[in-house]
Amino acid sequence: MSPYPSTIVNLIKNISKLPGIGEKTAERLAMHILRAPRKEAEQLSRSIVEAKEKVRLCKLCYGLSDDEVCKLCTDPTRDASLLCVVEQPADMVAMEKSGAFIGRYHILSGVLSPMNGVGPEDIRMGELIAKIQRGRIKEVVLATSTSVEGEATASYIAERLGTYSLKVTRIASGVPMGGDLKYVDQVTLKKAMEARHDL
Amino acid sequence: MSPYPSTIVNLIKNISKLPGIGEKTAERLAMHILRAPRKEAEQLSRSIVEAKEKVRLCKLCYGLSDDEVCKLCTDPTRDASLLCVVEQPADMVAMEKSGAFIGRYHILSGVLSPMNGVGPEDIRMGELIAKIQRGRIKEVVLATSTSVEGEATASYIAERLGTYSLKVTRIASGVPMGGDLKYVDQVTLKKAMEARHDL
Repeated sequence: MSPYPSTIVNLIKNISKLPGIGEKTAERLAMHILRAPRKEAEQLSRSIVEAKEKVRLCKLCYGLSDDEVCKLCTDPTRDASLLCVVEQPADMVAMEKSGAFIGRYHILSGVLSPMNGVGPEDIRMGELIAKIQRGRIKEVVLATSTSVEGEATASYIAERLGTYSLKVTRIASGVPMGGDLKYVDQVTLKKAMEARHDL
Repeated sequence: MSPYPSTIVNLIKNISKLPGIGEKTAERLAMHILRAPRKEAEQLSRSIVEAKEKVRLCKLCYGLSDDEVCKLCTDPTRDASLLCVVEQPADMVAMEKSGAFIGRYHILSGVLSPMNGVGPEDIRMGELIAKIQRGRIKEVVLATSTSVEGEATASYIAERLGTYSLKVTRIASGVPMGGDLKYVDQVTLKKAMEARHDL
């Protein structure tokens, strides 16, 4: 018999379904919720349901949005001639946090993976081509990940876009900032050496 | 401007109020909730509110309970002549998990702390005495923590119970199991040496 009443057992069980939360942590969080002001617990509970109900994909960039078109796609200060292609919404968030990009996004739903039956039409290639055919875009920055599949997807997209008169670029690979050279893998070091530039 | 829509910003904010959950983890959990099946998110949301609504203190032991009297206090297989005194509900849970105790509990609401104005009547001493006066209890096990205040509280209770004809015991102190002697503090080692027993 569990030493907790069933309501708490249930709460612990549901919390421990979250990724990276073990039973001990779930217990601690459940105890915090029991002690916390009622308002705080209700806000947490409501925000979970609201997120599920309201959040959808922006119909332009396919990022997460509360509305049909996201804040970023409707922002007139963003450069509509620049388009950054990323794999998933989280990548867009990371890029936005860096503050390095001032254009708009196109979010694929993953990467090409012929072994798993994921072809171009499964990762919104048609939608990307349609955007480009509208003619406003001058540069497409390919910011898929640097995994084998991410690289292959970037190469594929670059090839497909070869017929349009626009610049296609790829984000740089190299030694991460603050990185200790002796811990950096050989492939990355090779990339960094090949892409060396004047100072 | 946050790269997330406001519903997600709100969810992240509420999750990061939980103890030990930083903003990064809150983001990860929020993303999981967005991807998870709707049913799972609703269950989590509902169990939070239910826990706040249903859980109260058992009117006998003052532990956490779904009903007026908790499962443990109504369990006829528990030895009603044994009473374990602990500081808080979490201590009772820990003791129950050890499976070492077969009696009932009395949960104080903390420890005596004259410096902070916490006197005997603030930690349910009256309720403890009333239980003992009913005459069924033969042994009281003092399982307050081994902090200075926990020890003082145990001493105080032992003294108060001196006038009743019952056994008052204190849980043993010593080297924790699996403990490496060289990392154990001096006070604990002294206690362990003083309380040495025949093999």
